[in-house]
This record gives sequence, C-alpha cells and structure tokens, in this order.
Amino acid sequence: VTPLLNNPFNPMKILREFDYGTLKQENGVKIREFNVTANSSLLQLNSGVSFVSWNLNNRVPGPTFRVKEGERVRIIFHNEDGHSHSLHFHGIHPAEMDGIKPIRHGKKMVYEFTAEPYGVHLYHCHIAPVTRHISKGLYGMFIVDPPQPRPPADEMVMVMAGYDINNNQHNELYAFNGLPNYYRDHPISIYQNQLIRLYILNMIEFDPVSTFHIHGNMFNVYRTGRDTTPHEETDVITMGTGERHILEFSYPYPGKYMFHPHQDTLAELGCMGMFKVIPS
Amino acid sequence: VTPLLNNPFNPMKILREFDYGTLKQENGVKIREFNVTANSSLLQLNSGVSFVSWNLNNRVPGPTFRVKEGERVRIIFHNEDGHSHSLHFHGIHPAEMDGIKPIRHGKKMVYEFTAEPYGVHLYHCHIAPVTRHISKGLYGMFIVDPPQPRPPADEMVMVMAGYDINNNQHNELYAFNGLPNYYRDHPISIYQNQLIRLYILNMIEFDPVSTFHIHGNMFNVYRTGRDTTPHEETDVITMGTGERHILEFSYPYPGKYMFHPHQDTLAELGCMGMFKVIPS
Amino acid sequence: VTPLLNNPFNPMKILREFDYGTLKQENGVKIREFNVTANSSLLQLNSGVSFVSWNLNNRVPGPTFRVKEGERVRIIFHNEDGHSHSLHFHGIHPAEMDGIKPIRHGKKMVYEFTAEPYGVHLYHCHIAPVTRHISKGLYGMFIVDPPQPRPPADEMVMVMAGYDINNNQHNELYAFNGLPNYYRDHPISIYQNQLIRLYILNMIEFDPVSTFHIHGNMFNVYRTGRDTTPHEETDVITMGTGERHILEFSYPYPGKYMFHPHQDTLAELGCMGMFKVIPS
Ligand SMILES: [Cu+2]
Ligand SMILES: [Cu+2]
Ligand SMILES: [Cu+2]
Ligand SMILES: [Cu+2]
Ligand SMILES: [Cu+2]
Ligand SMILES: [Cu+2]
Ligand code: NA
Ligand code: NA
Ligand code: NA
Ligand code: NA
Ligand code: NA
Ligand code: NA
Ligand SMILES: [Zn+2]
Ligand SMILES: [Zn+2]
Ligand SMILES: [Zn+2]
Ligand SMILES: [Zn+2]
Ligand SMILES: [Zn+2]
Ligand SMILES: [Zn+2]
Ligand SMILES: [Zn+2]
Ligand SMILES: [Zn+2]
Ligand SMILES: [Zn+2]
Repeated sequence: VTPLLNNPFNPMKILREFDYGTLKQENGVKIREFNVTANSSLLQLNSGVSFVSWNLNNRVPGPTFRVKEGERVRIIFHNEDGHSHSLHFHGIHPAEMDGIKPIRHGKKMVYEFTAEPYGVHLYHCHIAPVTRHISKGLYGMFIVDPPQPRPPADEMVMVMAGYDINNNQHNELYAFNGLPNYYRDHPISIYQNQLIRLYILNMIEFDPVSTFHIHGNMFNVYRTGRDTTPHEETDVITMGTGERHILEFSYPYPGKYMFHPHQDTLAELGCMGMFKVIPS
Repeated sequence: VTPLLNNPFNPMKILREFDYGTLKQENGVKIREFNVTANSSLLQLNSGVSFVSWNLNNRVPGPTFRVKEGERVRIIFHNEDGHSHSLHFHGIHPAEMDGIKPIRHGKKMVYEFTAEPYGVHLYHCHIAPVTRHISKGLYGMFIVDPPQPRPPADEMVMVMAGYDINNNQHNELYAFNGLPNYYRDHPISIYQNQLIRLYILNMIEFDPVSTFHIHGNMFNVYRTGRDTTPHEETDVITMGTGERHILEFSYPYPGKYMFHPHQDTLAELGCMGMFKVIPS
Repeated sequence: VTPLLNNPFNPMKILREFDYGTLKQENGVKIREFNVTANSSLLQLNSGVSFVSWNLNNRVPGPTFRVKEGERVRIIFHNEDGHSHSLHFHGIHPAEMDGIKPIRHGKKMVYEFTAEPYGVHLYHCHIAPVTRHISKGLYGMFIVDPPQPRPPADEMVMVMAGYDINNNQHNELYAFNGLPNYYRDHPISIYQNQLIRLYILNMIEFDPVSTFHIHGNMFNVYRTGRDTTPHEETDVITMGTGERHILEFSYPYPGKYMFHPHQDTLAELGCMGMFKVIPS
C-alpha cells in the first residue's frame, strides 16, 4: 500500500475538494476571489522516486476552482517559486487576462474576468517550455457551473498527469490526482446506485492522448461539460492533452472495480485506481 | 498474395462468423452458454515472420460472442495455456464476474452475467502485464444486440491488432483479423448498394490510437453501438485502444476500394485491406 | 519575425484563398474544371532549415478546391515532378477515380466525378510510401459546399503539417499552412464579434494525433463539415491524420490570442499562430 509518505497533499482530499473562493462585494458588484501561490516542493512519487514539483497551493493538481456562469472571478496569483510562471485559463476572457505573460519570483498578478461559458475548464502555467511547466505540476481544474445547477450527485475530480522524472521528454510515472497508484491502494468508496459525477481532465504531456476506462460499467459523456444532456455512452474515452469532460455513472452491483487508461502502459506505471462500491 | 500458410484460422471466415453459443434452459431460466479455450499457437504472419500467439479457440481475434440485451450469459473459460490468463468483459456486470483474477494452466472459470447494455463491447485477458497478454492475441468482440434488432445488413467484424515481434514494446506488424495484409490480397466481396454494417474494434497496444478510413465513400458512426441513430458521418475515425463502433455504409459504384488506418505507417506494416464491390 | 524568405508562397494568401476552378459547359453538362501541377521546390522553413518539398501548384498545402454538392468536377493533374504521384480524393467517387495509380513524370491524369457529399474533405498523393509522399507536401483541402449555403462568415483554411527534415520518420518542424511560426509572427487580423468559419485539417504524418486549441474562446465543431448544426462546443479538439472539421467562433474582446495544438511540443516546433482581434 502506498503510504502518503512525506507528501504535502492527500489525493483522497483532492478528490472531492472544491475551492469556491471568497464572495466579496465591491461597489455593488459581487466578486468571487481566489488566492493561489506557486512554489516548488518535493513529491515522493513512490518509495524509491522523488520529484521536484512546481505547483500551486502545495498540491498537484492545483486547487479545483469552482464558480457559477456569469460570476465575476478574481484570481490573485502569487509566485513564490524561483522561476517565472503564469496562470492561463481556458474559457472566454479578454486578452489581457489570458495569462501568457511571465510573473517573476516574488511578484503578484491579479487575473479578473467574467466566468463563461459554463463547463469543465482548466488552467495551467503558459511559460515556455510549456511542456515542462505543465509536467512539473502547474495546472488544475476550473469548473463553471451552469445557471441551473446539475442534479445532486457524488461529485469528484480526477486529473491525469505524467511525470518526466529524468527530464528526457518521456514520462516514467503517471497518476490520478498527483500520486501514482494512490487510489489503487486506497480505493474510492462510493455507494451502490448513487449517481457519480466525475470531472476528468487529461494533463499528460509528451503522450499524444490518454484514454479513460472504468470496469464493469458504462458512463454518460458530457463533452467539455458544455451540455446538460449526454453526448454518448461508452466505457473508453480518448482525450488529448487539455481535454476534459463530465462522466456520469452509477454502479448497480457492489464490489471493487478498477479504473485506468486503456493504454495499459500508463496504467502499469501508476495511472490506476479502484472504486469500492458499498451496498446501499 | 498472402497464402493461409499453416495458420490455424482463416480471416475470411472470422469476418462474418458470430458465435451465438448454445441456448440452455435451467430451472426456467434461459442461459446462453459459450465455451472458450486459451492456448498458444504459432502464427505465420508472413512468409518470413512467425509469432507465438496466446489465443482463444485457436484464432486471433478470439470468437465474436453475440447475444441479445437482457439475456443471461455463461462463458466457460478453459485455460490450456502454460501461463495464467483471464477473461475480462466490457459492459455491466458484478465485480466477481469482472475477470481480473488469474486462472491457472489447466483450470476452468465460469463467468456468468446478464448482458447489458446493448452495444459493441469487447473482452480480453486482464493479467499483468496486460499490454503483453493483449498483444499476444487474447481478445475478441462481444456484441450485445438491441431488443429491437437493427435493420438487415451484410454484417462483418474487424479487429485491428498490432504484433510486437521482438518484444520491445513497439509493433512491427499490424493486421485486420489476425493476419497482416490478408484482405489486401483477398479482397472482401460486397454488393453495390448493399448496406454494410461493420463492427470495428481497435485492440492495438503500444500505439496511442489507430484511425480507420475507407476509400471512395463515407460511413455513419454509431459510437460504441450504443444508439440506433448515427452520431456523425465521416471517412476517418480516431480510436483509442479498447474503442469500438458500428460503421454503416454502402458503395454506390462497383470496383476495388482500399481500407486502412490513415496512419500510413500502420497501413504499410499490414493493416491494409480491400473491398471488391460487385455490381448488383 | 519570419520573413517570407525565398518561399514560393505566402501563408497569409493561402489562408483565405479558395480555388473555384473554371465553369465549363459540355454537351449541356456543367463541369467545374481545375488544373493542378505536381513539382518539387525548395522551402525555406526558417532561417537555418531548407526542405525539398513535393507540392501542388508550387504551394504547401496545395490549392483549396471548392465546389458545390452535386457539381461535376474535373481535376486535370499534371505531374512535372521527377517521382510518380497521384491525387486521391476523399468523398464518394467511382474506383477508377480513386487516385491510387501512379502518374509518371511528364504525364497527365484527369480525375472526374460528382462532388458528394457536402463537407470538408481532403486530397493527397497515394503513392507508397504514403507517409513520405504526404509529408513532403502533396495534400490539400477539398471543400464541398452544401446546397443551402452556410451563413456569411470570415472563412479561412488551416492545414496542420509536419516536416521530417532528416528523413527519420519523426517531425522536426510543424506548421500551419506551410511555414513554421508564420502566423505567430504575422498575426491573422479578424474583427471583434465577427463570425469566423475555420476549415481545419490535420495532415501531420508520424504523430498519431494533433490537437487544436484557441486561447480566450470556445468554438462550435461541425465534424467533417457534415452537418449544419454543431456537434459540440469546446476549445481543444483531437484530430487523427486525415481528420478535418469546421470550427466556428467569434471573439467578444479585442487583442491578441494564440492558437496551437495543445501538445506543446508541436507548438514549440512551429505549429503556433495568433489572432489579432480588431475592435469593431
Ligand atoms: Cu474493462
Ligand atoms: Cu480492461
Ligand atoms: Cu481515401
Ligand atoms: Cu487516403
Ligand atoms: Cu488556452
Ligand atoms: Cu494552453
Ligand atoms: Na520558493
Ligand atoms: Na522521462
Ligand atoms: Na497448451
Ligand atoms: Na517490437
Ligand atoms: Na520538376
Ligand atoms: Na525527422
Ligand atoms: Zn511555469
Ligand atoms: Zn490551454
Ligand atoms: Zn482494466
Ligand atoms: Zn493472459
Ligand atoms: Zn478493456
Ligand atoms: Zn488509402
Ligand atoms: Zn507522391
Ligand atoms: Zn486520405
Ligand atoms: Zn496556449
């Protein structure tokens, strides 16, 4: 079993943690304000491999920012890391808020825009070489909820990542939510017949695509979360880097079920997890 | 022209062969029962290359199991091969029937579940390293027909596979239904204006995706076979490992037409076939 | 800034140039006739790298042929290059017009067929090794307009290409419309709130897929252009070699916005461009 070792974060906590920021009122305008800090920290990827990550709020992936469509959003970005970084958000926003300008060590940048459109988006550092700044850990999910909320569900977030340990532009390890094999060794408890809403993002650099598969079940796909009715139902989905979707499913039978990319190389190098379905 | 050499199966026979099993009645319950045996056999991939396959019922891909949604299915799996193997089915089933436990040489395992949902599914060995157990040949298609049958058509099955001859995690040869270039050298006869229903599965390991293209025509795509109206019409589709679809088309003009992945490397290494459209 | 150097074509001209051919009347039948010549020419990909392209009409990609669904099309293909080549069109046509037979140096071939179905198609040389004949530059877009024209828009064409400079089956450079980084250094001017209709094609060989991403915005996807209502809205799309779509979007805010594959390796090696959104 993978212990947490000395890692600064717990994938089980990341799984269902949403950062709604702080709601402020300024001159009659409501603003949802977030604070995020870039820094470096050592990850212990397994008992034998450590990795200097560049990360946000001391976790990989960074915080899952969550807002409602149409809300004014303010992200206060502090760069405490030795390298220059930025936060580039997906979604619609003015060019000045696009996050492609380097913010130097010790500097602050305030990104502010109206959250649109609803869907599952992402953010990441956009400083060259982007492959390196992303694969070191500077990314996270950005969920914009629709005006009419989605039905109640057990909601969770999974970000697929690759680790280029030896800096040769190939990944030696992979993970869901930061730590290789964590959910294989600590299965995710869910309830039988409970609707699961999985926000999933592929942030693996160097590999052209990842797939995602769940055992013993099918899922409905809401592509980029840009709809409230599903596009298709399957159990294997192919995702390029930067692609993200909502997958919905519920398990009719109790027991343990694997999930992993159907590229078994990635699965065998750490991108492997388990659901433990508890009878309800 | 590729002769059959000493191969234990004929791709032309595999193309339109569906295994409906045996219908049994037990305590008033109807059960569709299948027998399948894992073993090793030597394939002659071309005049110069032979390959020790691990396979099911002496063919690569294994049998195309075909049932109706809601039917009770029983697969009696015999492992006559020297290595441990299993049969993992896609689709909905209880954890105990998920086929991730190794069945040793000489042992038998009975997988039993209710077939759902309708669509194009697959099965494969799930013993680690899965890349190896799949690429050696332990996979096949599992078709679950909808309650309301699809319209009449000339139905055929194609499974795209890769062969890692020298065991270096890269494929040196590729094939539709087991033998490289077989349908290039023995074109598939079809009739002009006849509706073709192609069940297609990508089981290529080590390559992130394969595409599938037909010449001189377009096809309707029923993604994962999970619908009875098409999702899109195209002539190039990208499929991750484990993805499978129904493609429907008919040729308005007679003559010979190539089909192949649009990654020409794969096509040039054996994943190449021809339709011969006969005037009707 | 990338100058045009000594290149025989200008990507800014290719962007919005459509070749409608010449409309002829023969025995009461209307025919849209095109002339296209294959030849070799030296491209200056950047200040240090030149590349012997095999191309059509002295440009990479070749001309964007544009016709209306149901029109009779005649392509008069002249091969002035030293190697044998052909023109294989996607879409529906008889086997004799499929363009898989080599046309030798100095020879002419007339391809003639009825343009169907409407959508975004492509053409390319289909002489073995196809990877080489395509990656040397022998491809282009083939747009078939629907009977009911699409709404007015600022229409543009982008073809993503890879260059295997050292002939090792890997690409060292990438480009939109022929020249690496051209639109990065010469941003494409568009107007705020103006509907953009982008016809996009992935013709990159050797890489399994490319993705396409625009900054600060989302786009509607019309897959293979085979519909007049969008399939989905996103800002990252995964495309296998030979896949092509219509993407529609308009920028609500002025300023400069990057576009590039979200595989940052490809972006950093030349597949990078910019929109300059002018206030309207
Ligand atoms: Cu499975
Ligand atoms: Cu599996
Ligand atoms: Cu074709
Ligand atoms: Cu082709
Ligand atoms: Cu972006
Ligand atoms: Cu980006
Ligand atoms: Na620091
Ligand atoms: Na590495
Ligand atoms: Na044996
Ligand atoms: Na190999
Ligand atoms: Na010449
Ligand atoms: Na190269
Ligand atoms: Zn950075
Ligand atoms: Zn991005
Ligand atoms: Zn699995
Ligand atoms: Zn096995
Ligand atoms: Zn599978
Ligand atoms: Zn072809
Ligand atoms: Zn050629
Ligand atoms: Zn093609
Ligand atoms: Zn970017």
